[in-house]
Amino acid sequence: MPSAFSFAVLATDGNARLGELHTPHGVVQTPAFMPVGTQGSVKAMRHRDLEEAGAQIILGNTYHLYLRPGDELIARRGGLHRFIGWPHPILTDSGGYQVFSLAERRKIDEQGAEFRSHLDGSLHRLSPESAVDIQARLGSDIAMVLDECLAYPASRDETAHSMERSVRWAERCRARFVDIRDGGGDVGPTNPGQAQFGILQGGVFQDLRDQSADATIAIGFEGYAIGGLSVGEPIDLMYAVVSDTVRRLPTDRPRYLMGAGTPEDLVDCVARGIDMFDCVLPTRNARNGQLFTSEGRINIKNARYAEDDGPVDPACGCYTCRTHSRAYLRHLYLAGEMTAGSLNTLHNLTFYLDTMRRIREAISLRTFDKFRQEFLRSASRLSLNS
Amino acid sequence: MPSAFSFAVLATDGNARLGELHTPHGVVQTPAFMPVGTQGSVKAMRHRDLEEAGAQIILGNTYHLYLRPGDELIARRGGLHRFIGWPHPILTDSGGYQVFSLAERRKIDEQGAEFRSHLDGSLHRLSPESAVDIQARLGSDIAMVLDECLAYPASRDETAHSMERSVRWAERCRARFVDIRDGGGDVGPTNPGQAQFGILQGGVFQDLRDQSADATIAIGFEGYAIGGLSVGEPIDLMYAVVSDTVRRLPTDRPRYLMGAGTPEDLVDCVARGIDMFDCVLPTRNARNGQLFTSEGRINIKNARYAEDDGPVDPACGCYTCRTHSRAYLRHLYLAGEMTAGSLNTLHNLTFYLDTMRRIREAISLRTFDKFRQEFLRSASRLSLNS
Repeated sequence: MPSAFSFAVLATDGNARLGELHTPHGVVQTPAFMPVGTQGSVKAMRHRDLEEAGAQIILGNTYHLYLRPGDELIARRGGLHRFIGWPHPILTDSGGYQVFSLAERRKIDEQGAEFRSHLDGSLHRLSPESAVDIQARLGSDIAMVLDECLAYPASRDETAHSMERSVRWAERCRARFVDIRDGGGDVGPTNPGQAQFGILQGGVFQDLRDQSADATIAIGFEGYAIGGLSVGEPIDLMYAVVSDTVRRLPTDRPRYLMGAGTPEDLVDCVARGIDMFDCVLPTRNARNGQLFTSEGRINIKNARYAEDDGPVDPACGCYTCRTHSRAYLRHLYLAGEMTAGSLNTLHNLTFYLDTMRRIREAISLRTFDKFRQEFLRSASRLSLNS
Repeated sequence: MPSAFSFAVLATDGNARLGELHTPHGVVQTPAFMPVGTQGSVKAMRHRDLEEAGAQIILGNTYHLYLRPGDELIARRGGLHRFIGWPHPILTDSGGYQVFSLAERRKIDEQGAEFRSHLDGSLHRLSPESAVDIQARLGSDIAMVLDECLAYPASRDETAHSMERSVRWAERCRARFVDIRDGGGDVGPTNPGQAQFGILQGGVFQDLRDQSADATIAIGFEGYAIGGLSVGEPIDLMYAVVSDTVRRLPTDRPRYLMGAGTPEDLVDCVARGIDMFDCVLPTRNARNGQLFTSEGRINIKNARYAEDDGPVDPACGCYTCRTHSRAYLRHLYLAGEMTAGSLNTLHNLTFYLDTMRRIREAISLRTFDKFRQEFLRSASRLSLNS
């Protein structure tokens, strides 16, 4: 049974690619940014806010959804799309990243991870196979393989062993995925057209990255993600790894840089051939009062905005910028109003998704390099502490 | 200079009245419910959510806005409407109720109240005159006089003395209001068309209520509010006071029952001739997971909704009910997602404001009594602990 998933590159400009992901729940134009919907909700957003901001796909966290409300409950509701009422594409991660960063008393071995829930201390196991099963029940359009995530910095030896284990896990994940897709087992998948992406590891060691790429590509996935970056390494090192790794990836599959990044990262990594991104930065920063604008970042808490009648970003057309002043948004933030979080998040996500739209437009016009230079110049105009 | 404020009764059905308030910021159809926008924001709502739910007027709390961000800052921004970006009518209370219920170390004497801010302990005074000045700077469409609020129960003597003081304060408030309206002083009002309502006190003692009504009407206001109810007295006593007090009020002025109430209270007090209501119940309960429906209240936390694919209220057309299941809303609530608060609040306010719309329709069709009987029967179908 063929996957309902496909990817096509429509145009290129340098290494930047304009493309389309076709999924069982609709088309995603790439380069794409995926807002993070941790527990089945992008924090402080209603789904229609996401649609309005231009989101075509969101990310769900398998770890959180597995623990609460549970993948089996979600499967009984008809899958994640139906449960949360989001009819558009969804990508789920494997749960591994949260097990490594959030869960308590975790033990990792070749079989997988044993951990205790951060919610109630209950004991759980996550294996390559169960990570596939859970995502099959959730029914996301794109599932990710379980990989091992190392903290930065890690030694070459540690990184090599971990990368090799991730390759072995990727093989097991793919085998399970194909088995379920072909009707095996009693998992009860809720989205027969689900695709699966492999994840490349290897830290900042390019020869390990190359080995990881070759082995993962040999297994064969609908798309490839670069994992293990945006974990604290110097930004130039991240860019170098992205550049070198992308060269090794097949041109006919989507490339997803996991967990990145700032608006500048998005532009600079599109320039290196990345098609998909996810990051909590726009949503988390919004709730902390840090707003992205066409002239750089501002901190809405700052006293300089107490009597500022202007919008957050004069170049932005979002509801927040159309309706409210910096003075009012500062007041809402200081007063602890929930609305501060929702107005700020709507703005930041609009900024991110509008940036992706402009990126796509620039690629289609073959003016991406000019766009990139202007974008980076504007973004650096205001410093972080303004 | 005449006020831009006017009120007309368009139809009656029994004691229930259909009317229109004309204000400098537009028309309010009565009977009306005013969502409470404590700090310049109805909690968890964007303004467009309020418009969508059918809100024609919101209430702002003078105590909160005076302390933060300050009435003078708001006046420099052009008044409360411009500061918060809400172009429709606003009513402000006098700040008295919060001074009596929220502020620390308050001292009340004939001059007014001295209190410490609940935010930072700073010392403040609120007098009848300053309550008028602050509201003139805020520029609400309807300002309220400063009155003394007693806890329930209070003795007849306490209630009489307090009511008499409230009458003296009402005289001072009106004098100051007229002075400002006629161009006196240097307060800098931001809404020349502001109206001012008197507030009747007298607890549950009808002869004191009558004295309060006569004296307050003699001063002369654009509208009259019934204060000091919904403070813990038995519901039948509240209804009796409302019935008896309304009879004494001029028919050509709007009647506002402060701080009430449940959906049933709204219907039953419209039946007694009330035109305006405000209450935190729909917004506060929403944030606690208590939802109002056409079949009574439900608590979305309840385990019985864990796998319930139906909407909160099949009879409701709000975004929440159109888009999401009880199962998902329960999950969002238990997961502590902010979106739970905003989706639940949108539903509860839609329920309240839709109830007001149906009330107005029933009065215009002269079927209000039938509507009322059916409404109360449906509302009692589910108990609070369902």
